[in-house]
Amino acid sequence: MVATAVTVNRAVAEGMDAADPLRGLRRLFFRADPQLIYLDGNSLGPLPAATRDYLDDVMLDGWGAGLVRSWETWIDWSRRLGDRIAAHALGAAPGEVALSDSTSVNLYKLAAAALDAAPGRRTILADADDFPTNRYILQGLADQRGLTLIPLRSDPSLGLGLDTLRDALGSDVALVVLSLVSYRSGALLDMAEVNAAAARAGALVLWDLSHAAGVIPVRLNASRADLAVGATYKYLNGGPGSPAFLYVRGELQHQLRQPIWGWFGQRDQFQMGERYSPRDDIDRFLAGTPPLLSMAALGPALDVLEQAPVTELRDKSVRLTELAVRLADEWLMPRGFRLASPRDPARRGSHVSLAHPQASLLSRALRSRMNVVCDFRAPDLLRIGTTPLYTSFTDVWDGLDRLRRLVDDRGHENLPEATSRVT
Amino acid sequence: MVATAVTVNRAVAEGMDAADPLRGLRRLFFRADPQLIYLDGNSLGPLPAATRDYLDDVMLDGWGAGLVRSWETWIDWSRRLGDRIAAHALGAAPGEVALSDSTSVNLYKLAAAALDAAPGRRTILADADDFPTNRYILQGLADQRGLTLIPLRSDPSLGLGLDTLRDALGSDVALVVLSLVSYRSGALLDMAEVNAAAARAGALVLWDLSHAAGVIPVRLNASRADLAVGATYKYLNGGPGSPAFLYVRGELQHQLRQPIWGWFGQRDQFQMGERYSPRDDIDRFLAGTPPLLSMAALGPALDVLEQAPVTELRDKSVRLTELAVRLADEWLMPRGFRLASPRDPARRGSHVSLAHPQASLLSRALRSRMNVVCDFRAPDLLRIGTTPLYTSFTDVWDGLDRLRRLVDDRGHENLPEATSRVT
Repeated sequence: MVATAVTVNRAVAEGMDAADPLRGLRRLFFRADPQLIYLDGNSLGPLPAATRDYLDDVMLDGWGAGLVRSWETWIDWSRRLGDRIAAHALGAAPGEVALSDSTSVNLYKLAAAALDAAPGRRTILADADDFPTNRYILQGLADQRGLTLIPLRSDPSLGLGLDTLRDALGSDVALVVLSLVSYRSGALLDMAEVNAAAARAGALVLWDLSHAAGVIPVRLNASRADLAVGATYKYLNGGPGSPAFLYVRGELQHQLRQPIWGWFGQRDQFQMGERYSPRDDIDRFLAGTPPLLSMAALGPALDVLEQAPVTELRDKSVRLTELAVRLADEWLMPRGFRLASPRDPARRGSHVSLAHPQASLLSRALRSRMNVVCDFRAPDLLRIGTTPLYTSFTDVWDGLDRLRRLVDDRGHENLPEATSRVT
Repeated sequence: MVATAVTVNRAVAEGMDAADPLRGLRRLFFRADPQLIYLDGNSLGPLPAATRDYLDDVMLDGWGAGLVRSWETWIDWSRRLGDRIAAHALGAAPGEVALSDSTSVNLYKLAAAALDAAPGRRTILADADDFPTNRYILQGLADQRGLTLIPLRSDPSLGLGLDTLRDALGSDVALVVLSLVSYRSGALLDMAEVNAAAARAGALVLWDLSHAAGVIPVRLNASRADLAVGATYKYLNGGPGSPAFLYVRGELQHQLRQPIWGWFGQRDQFQMGERYSPRDDIDRFLAGTPPLLSMAALGPALDVLEQAPVTELRDKSVRLTELAVRLADEWLMPRGFRLASPRDPARRGSHVSLAHPQASLLSRALRSRMNVVCDFRAPDLLRIGTTPLYTSFTDVWDGLDRLRRLVDDRGHENLPEATSRVT
């Protein structure tokens, strides 16, 4: 039996859980299946237990009873929830963050605004390995404006090197778009260093914080960040497709103008004046009517997040991924896996990627045969995501133990044909 | 007492309700306050009674238990719900309608796509009285591309004249953007005539169906419509900010390319390939991850809508607005109101606008003192919206009766100062 060779046995993980000061927070989430090991909170965060009642109240009292009158309350939610995320998770000031649209649309709006603000500069820098929607959005903007998009080559496991960025930062660069934590490797960039390098070159930086917000103590103001966007359905647990956030540094707001001139960005919106005249605050980056029910779900999700400082979440996250790396070293590397994340926890976010030639089959078999959910990312990555509000150390132990047993039992062979459009 | 002078007394309205074949559908909606007269379903449709349980199931079974695996189901909802709206409300074929983003963002995407497809043409035609977000979005596109936006003057009560449009349709016109039903006057355009006139000039037409979908039997295919967008939170009752729909005629889809190159428009989305290569169907007009809870609420809302053909809803809607006009003639015109909608029901949507110099105060007093909700639209309009699935003839009678009594009692004077950002 392979388990006898393991130095970290399950009791060690159980002890780590017993000593975890955040262990009580797991009870704030709904769990349908206590046997399920969920290591995918970085794709979709779990359901906070309070969300159902809260949403029902919004439906019953807000929509049902209040009807259109409830917009008097709802009209500011995008900013109010944005301010909460800013204060607790992003290190930004009130009035610098709002909820709006999807991450894709927000990236489009802010990137376009930044490009329009630097008409003499013709180059965009991006990470060649960045999340697809970011690369595609920038391709579109470059294509439409005749600009040059330079994809920076990054190490598949270690992420973008700061020297690579510095070498590319010339006087023609208008905008740098980077993910603080890589969706593939989990590599974590140094935000302050990047911002400083870009500022010296006169370029703006637009950060995608999707895999960072809620697990990395982001310090947008302290690191002089210009612009940021991010998903709220990952570590912020806002639910599937909950509206994304956008951040624009206070003193930049009035200098930038986004291209989608919708009525939620209009000064005196309900005066419905003849000409578009954007507000002079963060609301100028809004467009249309926000999806209120999806936005409302952020309320109880932030109630949970605010139970712990992100620095404490980060501490636990580091210990969770360290455990994952250690178990992977012992159990999985001998079985054909390769670590595809930084080994240094200071350079890593809250997930660990493991490369394996059969990762796609393994991911499907983990779900269907071992009751473990993690993500597959083509062509060969298993992404082990840890959510410090929710994931226990025994979750990590059990998940990787089941993966090891799956490989030994060849449980990923002879799977039924995949039929889903979703990996 | 003024009521003695009225020829349509309340018993007549009660008789119309008793004879209404759709009267049973009202029970499919939640009602918190039986005394409330809600004449604003064209701003926010009421809550279908089944929505709460359905949303709770989506939260519990979909998000809570299924977690990220539920995207295998959710990934097609944008099209599935779009197909239902297409079939029942829009006269469009499967694969021509999808839910996505807000009306503002969809208008931006489709207008930009249309403009890019006609690079030699430099003019956009729009209704000078169209809903603000439409005018602003088009101003933005014209500004960014150096195009000319020509606002067509329309009659404030009767809407845009077809001759005005024909006179403006020259060989330089790339795009015509119009609302099928005016958000202000309720004036209803002849879609087939407009499409034909634009087609003769070689221009595309982009329709905003926000105030039409669900109450006007829209025949997009039969009238050779090119493009359309619309809100789903009005007569479709999808809830506050539910995602909007977009329509692109089948044979046009592959010719058009929208500017926000998000991953939901990408071929083989989860392969996450290097280059953006848009799907060749309606999904190419999608951008980012849709707000799933807000989208889900469309399901039970369409269940209600599908209880009756839109032709029957239209029949009832005409009778509702005819009653409103008749009562307004008898009660309100002598009290300083003016009809600001077409008198011919064939040229009118499902709301009636009444102009009065004190409309803002009257609207606030109706809500706070008479328990009647209708909309105010600056500077002087009260919008009386009827939702044939929900509004009864006695609702119309009671609502206008309370308005008449409010004016007689001067109940709109000495109101507390308005504090809301929302009118």
